[in-house]
Amino acid sequence: MSGSTFGTIFKLSTFGESHGKAMGGVIEGFPAGISLDAQLVQQELDKRRPGQSEVVSARNEKDEVEFLSGIFEGKSTGTPIGFTIYNNDQKSKDYSHLKDTYRPSHADFTYEKKYGLRDYRGGGRSSARETVCRVVAGALAKQALYQMNVRFSTYVIQIGNVKFESESFFDSALIEDSSVRCPGKKCSKEMEDAVLKIKEEGDTLGGIVQCIVENVESGLGEPVFDKLHAQLGKAMLSINAVKGFEIGSGFSAASMKGSEHNDIFDDNGKTKTNYSGGVQGGISNGMPIVFRVGFKPVATIMKNQDSIDKEGNKVVIEGKGRHDACVVPRAVPIVESMAAITILDYYLRNKTIHL
Amino acid sequence: MSGSTFGTIFKLSTFGESHGKAMGGVIEGFPAGISLDAQLVQQELDKRRPGQSEVVSARNEKDEVEFLSGIFEGKSTGTPIGFTIYNNDQKSKDYSHLKDTYRPSHADFTYEKKYGLRDYRGGGRSSARETVCRVVAGALAKQALYQMNVRFSTYVIQIGNVKFESESFFDSALIEDSSVRCPGKKCSKEMEDAVLKIKEEGDTLGGIVQCIVENVESGLGEPVFDKLHAQLGKAMLSINAVKGFEIGSGFSAASMKGSEHNDIFDDNGKTKTNYSGGVQGGISNGMPIVFRVGFKPVATIMKNQDSIDKEGNKVVIEGKGRHDACVVPRAVPIVESMAAITILDYYLRNKTIHL
Amino acid sequence: MSGSTFGTIFKLSTFGESHGKAMGGVIEGFPAGISLDAQLVQQELDKRRPGQSEVVSARNEKDEVEFLSGIFEGKSTGTPIGFTIYNNDQKSKDYSHLKDTYRPSHADFTYEKKYGLRDYRGGGRSSARETVCRVVAGALAKQALYQMNVRFSTYVIQIGNVKFESESFFDSALIEDSSVRCPGKKCSKEMEDAVLKIKEEGDTLGGIVQCIVENVESGLGEPVFDKLHAQLGKAMLSINAVKGFEIGSGFSAASMKGSEHNDIFDDNGKTKTNYSGGVQGGISNGMPIVFRVGFKPVATIMKNQDSIDKEGNKVVIEGKGRHDACVVPRAVPIVESMAAITILDYYLRNKTIHL
Amino acid sequence: MSGSTFGTIFKLSTFGESHGKAMGGVIEGFPAGISLDAQLVQQELDKRRPGQSEVVSARNEKDEVEFLSGIFEGKSTGTPIGFTIYNNDQKSKDYSHLKDTYRPSHADFTYEKKYGLRDYRGGGRSSARETVCRVVAGALAKQALYQMNVRFSTYVIQIGNVKFESESFFDSALIEDSSVRCPGKKCSKEMEDAVLKIKEEGDTLGGIVQCIVENVESGLGEPVFDKLHAQLGKAMLSINAVKGFEIGSGFSAASMKGSEHNDIFDDNGKTKTNYSGGVQGGISNGMPIVFRVGFKPVATIMKNQDSIDKEGNKVVIEGKGRHDACVVPRAVPIVESMAAITILDYYLRNKTIHL
Repeated sequence: MSGSTFGTIFKLSTFGESHGKAMGGVIEGFPAGISLDAQLVQQELDKRRPGQSEVVSARNEKDEVEFLSGIFEGKSTGTPIGFTIYNNDQKSKDYSHLKDTYRPSHADFTYEKKYGLRDYRGGGRSSARETVCRVVAGALAKQALYQMNVRFSTYVIQIGNVKFESESFFDSALIEDSSVRCPGKKCSKEMEDAVLKIKEEGDTLGGIVQCIVENVESGLGEPVFDKLHAQLGKAMLSINAVKGFEIGSGFSAASMKGSEHNDIFDDNGKTKTNYSGGVQGGISNGMPIVFRVGFKPVATIMKNQDSIDKEGNKVVIEGKGRHDACVVPRAVPIVESMAAITILDYYLRNKTIHL
Repeated sequence: MSGSTFGTIFKLSTFGESHGKAMGGVIEGFPAGISLDAQLVQQELDKRRPGQSEVVSARNEKDEVEFLSGIFEGKSTGTPIGFTIYNNDQKSKDYSHLKDTYRPSHADFTYEKKYGLRDYRGGGRSSARETVCRVVAGALAKQALYQMNVRFSTYVIQIGNVKFESESFFDSALIEDSSVRCPGKKCSKEMEDAVLKIKEEGDTLGGIVQCIVENVESGLGEPVFDKLHAQLGKAMLSINAVKGFEIGSGFSAASMKGSEHNDIFDDNGKTKTNYSGGVQGGISNGMPIVFRVGFKPVATIMKNQDSIDKEGNKVVIEGKGRHDACVVPRAVPIVESMAAITILDYYLRNKTIHL
Repeated sequence: MSGSTFGTIFKLSTFGESHGKAMGGVIEGFPAGISLDAQLVQQELDKRRPGQSEVVSARNEKDEVEFLSGIFEGKSTGTPIGFTIYNNDQKSKDYSHLKDTYRPSHADFTYEKKYGLRDYRGGGRSSARETVCRVVAGALAKQALYQMNVRFSTYVIQIGNVKFESESFFDSALIEDSSVRCPGKKCSKEMEDAVLKIKEEGDTLGGIVQCIVENVESGLGEPVFDKLHAQLGKAMLSINAVKGFEIGSGFSAASMKGSEHNDIFDDNGKTKTNYSGGVQGGISNGMPIVFRVGFKPVATIMKNQDSIDKEGNKVVIEGKGRHDACVVPRAVPIVESMAAITILDYYLRNKTIHL
Repeated sequence: MSGSTFGTIFKLSTFGESHGKAMGGVIEGFPAGISLDAQLVQQELDKRRPGQSEVVSARNEKDEVEFLSGIFEGKSTGTPIGFTIYNNDQKSKDYSHLKDTYRPSHADFTYEKKYGLRDYRGGGRSSARETVCRVVAGALAKQALYQMNVRFSTYVIQIGNVKFESESFFDSALIEDSSVRCPGKKCSKEMEDAVLKIKEEGDTLGGIVQCIVENVESGLGEPVFDKLHAQLGKAMLSINAVKGFEIGSGFSAASMKGSEHNDIFDDNGKTKTNYSGGVQGGISNGMPIVFRVGFKPVATIMKNQDSIDKEGNKVVIEGKGRHDACVVPRAVPIVESMAAITILDYYLRNKTIHL
């Protein structure tokens, strides 16, 4: 019940605090007999890793994953895959000044209220460092889905006020070419400038990530409560700093007419438009799955802020340390990982429909 | 795995097809010893019921709930609460013309692909009629939460292009005064006009529902995957026709700076602003929980539409029968019910944090 | 969490109190497209029903099941199957004398301690009447399993001191020929005599049921915690009055040597002996699954017994009313139902091993 | 769904193969704020460890647990506790001769049938080495339960034909004094002799472990499917080599009369006898919980055995290597651990009964 498990058949259980010994997890229900390449996992981890470029945090973690079980002679055995990622760059940190202080819009206050105590070092369990485990599981899930020809294109469509308008499927290489993971050349430059500028100000920016999944077979998704996009939404909303999720037409559907919004079938069972975003009645219809995830600006800023301590006394939180001026580019592999985890789970669930 | 169960400790399992014998469900984990008033449940059902006014569907269902267990001498016993709502107005229906035809943006196609067969009468399991069971469970959950002083204010903030801008907590009576469940007098009239106009056109409109929950204690929500707003998001996205969910600042956070967005504490441990929407790090902070749910326009329109049949032949779907020109006002009690179901579950989950 | 749901993919959630309006449940995850015969369900219910013969309780319940959803034109649709069985013969009952009294070895005391209140009429939720829902789900599961050629032979091997020693697979007709459901003619007569004698004494007897399942494919069962026999054991131990479960050699294995107990393979991958009882390492090996379930004597006896009331005062419980002198023959369809529910669930789970 | 998770609120997910890099797991839902002593965990691990004495396997594993998260400044934080136990003594092993061979009454055949491939080194996931993770979780659970005054007494009551008849609560020190963990001096010596004799023969022996849990409060256990003893039964049956489980009177109840078996209340709400074994109607009644677990003899023997290979060809399995002549003494801490895990989970579940 502590909320650190995701999925039903393909399940990920994670553990780890930002400045504890290690992050890690157990992946249950990974299908047997899938060839797995640990290098591809490391590649995904490197995308999420801090210290990649000027636009992200300088914390230096190698984020090397070690697989401890469930893979034998290069193949998944169907038994649980245990893994760890040791925290290396945490020892010198001094977070004792945060022991009794609540940072604004962090989870310090709420964890203390909930548990009565907390590992205050670097946010502890509430730190986005936890997402490293999601990327491990997502990278494995993608390798399984790759066999079904499922493909992902995940990129940044907004940072601050810079917007990139597109629903195209862009190649991963093109996305990785951009320091902010926006495949639009011009927008990418503008976003990068916006991040560098806000960094100079000691402030932070939010943004939006879009994910497009192609070649998902029709029939995935469960009626009523476990609709495919409901679980995708939960997956995304569980990522740190996410404030919104929409699929297909999303909130813009509110101002549309039914006659505009309905996706008319063409002769092949495909639809001419895709306002549904690839999901109808909670079940995939074979069209690309298209969704967007809205991120708030990072709460840690390089400016002094008023706050309170445990006793309710006023304190000033000093703006210092390492942080991301905009976390959205690093969120791209996390969004994609959660999508892959969810979709693989639904592939497996769908196998139980017929005896 | 068939996706008809929601919740972890307080759990709802539902069944029923639009034109089958009955809808119903089992509520597990309802706390023992709570006084329950069946009348209050019926009141909530009446809010969701078709045929309430000119702006909603004319289908005439009494939607009378019968409780079969779990309540004894007016109190919950802690054992499962079974209930049924018989379908009365379904017999005369003739849906045989839909047997082999896929309506655009309905679930006909996807259910057929998934299961290989479907109850095609009125959408079967994919019909929004299913939400009647959510309202039963929600009405019971609200009675339990009422004892904790938790209060809900759920209303329409957009229909088509008419927007009502507010984050205030409105009294239920004020909301119920409006045929479209918008507490803003002027907006309510404009929304009503928009619905009547679109109805005349034989078309439909989408909209947005906002829900505000007050007096939720701090500490509710589980770290990582089961963040309070992640589960709320899933709850809402599981409702028919929902395309988007956002909490607090939502998608607008994308264009904000951290220094603007951070909610600064006041002396009482409250925050001066509430961009977080009552949830920080996935855990409630004692501020009002504020979220919005975006609905697409209903897919059933009174206009002829091109479509295909099972064999892929072109057909024309005739626009006829009963339908809602805008489902958003009727969605209000459903949104509120899912919020209550989720929050009660998290109250119970939170009781297991300490031995 | 209230414990009224069983299974993982094929799931049964039940509700109902002995003297409430109705018993019922929701079956989730039943595979789509299976032809279902409601008559076969009723046949199984009739085996469990009181009032069948002299050796069982005289309570007169028709136990007619009504299916409310999930079955369309004679086939399962893959959506939840809701059902009810109304309680008919409960109205005249007067259980008010039990309101404040705890019957020995019943659940009166423990329910009161747990919940602080209870539906005291006829045991409420703790009554074995609840098992009627298991038989409904089991009868449907058996119809699905029948398509896989899975066959059940469930019978009584002990009542009181009369033992029937066999591990043979007996035809259902032969078992049903016996009033005590023991396929051994001589033993059956002796058991019947033992039950009639104990009935005259106003006392009750325990016994043992054996279940043999043939043609279960190899590979069912999950490693570690969800071993096939672990879940079968839970299934059986959850039946009222069960005190023990063993598979294959069971407790007798304690005094065996490894060289005796090991099941040596023959040329076909079958084993020459079956001390394993069809399960090795928690996974079926294709041999018949053989297990035994031990029942205590029914706690309700027709003799006066000392007991206490809520305040701890001494009271005398009078021996009166309707009861079973030996519940074991009626337990046969319940044991078989729980076996079928478990095995169907594991068939479905096993479908997720490969992508 | 891969079956490596146990529990509902207090949950253990494990991973690891006998000869892989490491065993380990994640414990979710451990209550916050409990002082934890890692030394006590190591003590329990040492009880399970091979190489303790002449009567157990000579495999030399230090079984050192490393906690990676969830414990901060000596206290549980309420977040997941990740842990690993590295396999040290596995490298030199050569199991390649088992690659294509199925050992009798092992899980080689069934794993191969299920997954299509397997880590054949030392049984892989099916090895009892997996139980090391259960002991870690159990040792933590016991520390939490100790605060509620819950006490365990677990010991061997049968090895081969030597039986120790008692239902007394023995002190741990007395049990640990015995090389076979039987607190009866005379029986202990006889059991030890029996084990040494069978070891000389190159054969193995089964046995029975009894567990008594005192001071469990009344009210633990959930109605219907999740009865306390049903879950305890599943917990025990999931342990390698277990063939039977019984509670209280167990199978002996089959030959008892109701008038004998009923546990009559005394004035304090206790019962004069305890045939119920501390559980009535699936819920604890405050009396000691008493259950027994039957183990088959270990399948690995030092004698040549006929068997088959993957292609069905006859082969001879040579009796060689390290093994336990009787695993029952080492099973004692495992049984106790699974009991503690189950009971702590039910304590937490019971906290959700009232709002």
